[in-house]
Amino acid sequence: MKYPLRGVIPPMVTPLLENLQLDVESLEKLIMHLLNGGVHGIFLLGTNGEGPSLDYEVRKQLITESCRIIAGRVPVLVGITDTSFSAVIEMAEHAKKEGADYLVLAPPYYFPISQSEMVEYLEKIIPQVELPVIVYDIPVCTKLHLSLETIKSAKEMGAFGVKDSSGDLGALYTLIDAFKNEQFSIIAGAELFMSDVLMHGGHGVVAGGANIFPKLFVELYEASINKDFDSITLLRQQVLQLQNEIYEIDDSPTKSIRAIKSALSLMDICSDHMVPPLSGFCPEKKKILEQRLKQFAI
Amino acid sequence: MKYPLRGVIPPMVTPLLENLQLDVESLEKLIMHLLNGGVHGIFLLGTNGEGPSLDYEVRKQLITESCRIIAGRVPVLVGITDTSFSAVIEMAEHAKKEGADYLVLAPPYYFPISQSEMVEYLEKIIPQVELPVIVYDIPVCTKLHLSLETIKSAKEMGAFGVKDSSGDLGALYTLIDAFKNEQFSIIAGAELFMSDVLMHGGHGVVAGGANIFPKLFVELYEASINKDFDSITLLRQQVLQLQNEIYEIDDSPTKSIRAIKSALSLMDICSDHMVPPLSGFCPEKKKILEQRLKQFAI
Amino acid sequence: MKYPLRGVIPPMVTPLLENLQLDVESLEKLIMHLLNGGVHGIFLLGTNGEGPSLDYEVRKQLITESCRIIAGRVPVLVGITDTSFSAVIEMAEHAKKEGADYLVLAPPYYFPISQSEMVEYLEKIIPQVELPVIVYDIPVCTKLHLSLETIKSAKEMGAFGVKDSSGDLGALYTLIDAFKNEQFSIIAGAELFMSDVLMHGGHGVVAGGANIFPKLFVELYEASINKDFDSITLLRQQVLQLQNEIYEIDDSPTKSIRAIKSALSLMDICSDHMVPPLSGFCPEKKKILEQRLKQFAI
Amino acid sequence: MKYPLRGVIPPMVTPLLENLQLDVESLEKLIMHLLNGGVHGIFLLGTNGEGPSLDYEVRKQLITESCRIIAGRVPVLVGITDTSFSAVIEMAEHAKKEGADYLVLAPPYYFPISQSEMVEYLEKIIPQVELPVIVYDIPVCTKLHLSLETIKSAKEMGAFGVKDSSGDLGALYTLIDAFKNEQFSIIAGAELFMSDVLMHGGHGVVAGGANIFPKLFVELYEASINKDFDSITLLRQQVLQLQNEIYEIDDSPTKSIRAIKSALSLMDICSDHMVPPLSGFCPEKKKILEQRLKQFAI
Repeated sequence: MKYPLRGVIPPMVTPLLENLQLDVESLEKLIMHLLNGGVHGIFLLGTNGEGPSLDYEVRKQLITESCRIIAGRVPVLVGITDTSFSAVIEMAEHAKKEGADYLVLAPPYYFPISQSEMVEYLEKIIPQVELPVIVYDIPVCTKLHLSLETIKSAKEMGAFGVKDSSGDLGALYTLIDAFKNEQFSIIAGAELFMSDVLMHGGHGVVAGGANIFPKLFVELYEASINKDFDSITLLRQQVLQLQNEIYEIDDSPTKSIRAIKSALSLMDICSDHMVPPLSGFCPEKKKILEQRLKQFAI
Repeated sequence: MKYPLRGVIPPMVTPLLENLQLDVESLEKLIMHLLNGGVHGIFLLGTNGEGPSLDYEVRKQLITESCRIIAGRVPVLVGITDTSFSAVIEMAEHAKKEGADYLVLAPPYYFPISQSEMVEYLEKIIPQVELPVIVYDIPVCTKLHLSLETIKSAKEMGAFGVKDSSGDLGALYTLIDAFKNEQFSIIAGAELFMSDVLMHGGHGVVAGGANIFPKLFVELYEASINKDFDSITLLRQQVLQLQNEIYEIDDSPTKSIRAIKSALSLMDICSDHMVPPLSGFCPEKKKILEQRLKQFAI
Repeated sequence: MKYPLRGVIPPMVTPLLENLQLDVESLEKLIMHLLNGGVHGIFLLGTNGEGPSLDYEVRKQLITESCRIIAGRVPVLVGITDTSFSAVIEMAEHAKKEGADYLVLAPPYYFPISQSEMVEYLEKIIPQVELPVIVYDIPVCTKLHLSLETIKSAKEMGAFGVKDSSGDLGALYTLIDAFKNEQFSIIAGAELFMSDVLMHGGHGVVAGGANIFPKLFVELYEASINKDFDSITLLRQQVLQLQNEIYEIDDSPTKSIRAIKSALSLMDICSDHMVPPLSGFCPEKKKILEQRLKQFAI
Repeated sequence: MKYPLRGVIPPMVTPLLENLQLDVESLEKLIMHLLNGGVHGIFLLGTNGEGPSLDYEVRKQLITESCRIIAGRVPVLVGITDTSFSAVIEMAEHAKKEGADYLVLAPPYYFPISQSEMVEYLEKIIPQVELPVIVYDIPVCTKLHLSLETIKSAKEMGAFGVKDSSGDLGALYTLIDAFKNEQFSIIAGAELFMSDVLMHGGHGVVAGGANIFPKLFVELYEASINKDFDSITLLRQQVLQLQNEIYEIDDSPTKSIRAIKSALSLMDICSDHMVPPLSGFCPEKKKILEQRLKQFAI
């Protein structure tokens, strides 16, 4: 492993042209924005990256170009989750070939499946792919909340960590406790609980908001691992502001994802073209977003 | 439209070789089994067909080969549902080119979306594709239960009908009532309510069990539209037996899908190779299945 | 048993004065309205009767007065469901003393409980009370959907039947099939599926709408058991109209219950005073209700 | 108000005799156990106290005796939640008469209701009762997750605080933020998140486990408000042990409540008689519990 997996790892938004092809120029800008903010890794093709919506050629090109631009400065994580089994394997091979560092794998998200079916599924993938796998728990999209037993099985097969976007903080604390004496990265998805999770033993965060304000999240990460509670209080207040003001402009179930891409377009980093069924904000909401973004003391 | 969309339309299982490539020989056997049973249409790449799990080349080959074998004897419906927007369009074009008759489209199933986002999504597809579209309501897989308003919007955009696998019979009856004076096919997915739905004005059924016993379902269809209640009672009893004995051998959420493919393998029609995360029954369960299948008076 | 349990059994609304005491005069009017409509039984203190909201003295008085007014003309069912264990027993004893015929018992509805805890609970009640018990499945209120095994256990303890308001028609058909050769009343709560359920072997219906239009439901019951499909089609259309026009005026989760009591007040049968958290319609909605009621060809 | 509402407030278990009458002797022992542990208040008739299951006379006697025993040493909170509207008012009056300090009120838990119906309901209670009201959010029992708007409305009517047992830590953090500049007590129900909530501005905790180990929770409270992170880490580890070892012996939805009363019986504080549908542990589980309790370094 080139890098230990820790820290702030933004689930990178995918910059697109109007024809939904990859916008390589904006990709460079976005990656530089994140690296300049001090992030510790970059996660491609996740939920915020609209991974499952993208054309397969765009997905591959994104991996290729991102690995080229990042050039080993931070680890690259690639989401390979797919309902098509052969597409999972193919994307894993492409990621390996282009020099990515980790694969991120959630349950295939069409059929409702049981924990034991998920374990059997992981057995067909984790030992076969060449990069270390992070299992990804995101039941709001996949319908399956991975149990502790399933995650333990994944570890036995060679998984390197878990990314928890379950929204179930009790389960996350149980995870941290269960693996506290082992080499297993616990990465949390919830921005608002970030400092809590890091103070109690979590290793990192995949925070969508770090696409907009990478430095805010990196500073909060530093404050949390240093248990600098005064800084935590100040920085966490801005994360709360992000949640309550930026992510609540729209009322769609993907309101935060849409807000983040719209914010990046207002910041001239990339356009807010999104693949259906998602879309950027309408002009009215974009105006509200613009005003609210200005109020951030960052 | 070559054929009015009515009757029994099996959501055809996809015959696979051990390497998960298409088994064309078994495909011929299965299609002949269905046509000999008198089915009124065949639905490719649905939930029972493991559509979202298949390799994209296998999906295309399945369409091509099935259209060739069916050769216009019954209408061919093709599931084009995908989370990748470009893959939806590409599969629609392939289906048109190969001579299929209808497209079947459910919500993209990764992101949770709202009704209005679904309407916007349909607007980007229904007017653009060249074959008539049946919208597909299957919340247990897609997380979105299409509202009456969404289905009415789909009709205004040119949708030709709806396939309801919502499990919500109240909503289905409301659908039938809402479209009773219009040209709009109401196709139900629930086998056990099939006669009820047909007697109250529904047009057809997509019954997974018709893969095993096409004739049973065709006879129940005839009895239902003729309001021959004595026959309904007898035939419905066998559908109930299918539900309670065949579909309850396993306890997986996809127990009926797995049972159907395993039954077809016991009937020497096709193997029970399935794409992960699904799989055929273990030998013990297959034995139970074999014994129970023998007790059908068909 | 004085009467076999079959037919249309309205879950009777509880007529109240403004001070939420029992309105005995209106109770007489309402009971006569139901008996004149030909109903086969009357169910007191159910969900439509606001049973769990009422003052305990009002509940007892309702039982006493209703038994007196009904005077054995049809069987009287009394809902005894409560979270307080001693209150269940006390209400069962009162019902027995006043001459009621059946007790209706749902899970205690505060704690979430398992099927096995429900079985243990029934063991502490069914053998102890003196009247025959109908178990009541209404998960939308109680959070527990009774399994077939739980209902079979209830039967073994002496339960006389089940009232299914689960909304799960598949489970209801499985129930009918499971008990088809036994003495066990299957009573359905869903108005729209009433004819389906009766034609497939169900014994009766607890239809809230029968408070308003008892004769409509009695005629639909007759048509259903006679398999007179032309009459079914006509009458069922009115039930559908009730669902789509009367029960959809409000958007509260208890919209049908509120509509039924408001309709009875417009029909001068009883006031629409309801116990908090429910309430009758506001004047605007009452006006809409009045206009829509006029359009019923009854 | 005699006392500001802060700190550790156990939701006190209700000691019962075998005949389910109040065990006054054990009540004294339990209250002394809690007061000796340093708790800052005592909450009667909550979920852990089996409030909704108890006989009404037992509820009243519990209030009377507890107020007598506590004798003003800490504030007494009384759960008045009921589905019967008149019972809510009656219990509120009894609590006032006997000298209790606060009332705790959750949604009436039979009917599913909307936020606006809950607001109307609160309007009929909060201004009418004489003691300050804490609104109680416990959707796993009541089916309604109180919205921020509903809680704000409650505050405007005079509510004094909120007890959050929603399990939704994001919502709880939003609550804390929304009321940070106002006089409004935010009391959390989740034991595992206790230190997080207190460090981020919450005022107190209603921790079921404080029935067993009041001192543990009081020390964790002190450490949290003092931001003594080393102590937090040590003490929190024991709360985690409580969660993972004591609350996971049974698999019932009320496993923690049953474990707590069984533990108190092993500690000779009160019996584990519980009102149906709950019950104490069987001898096998009690043995496991006994062994696990011994491993606590308290």
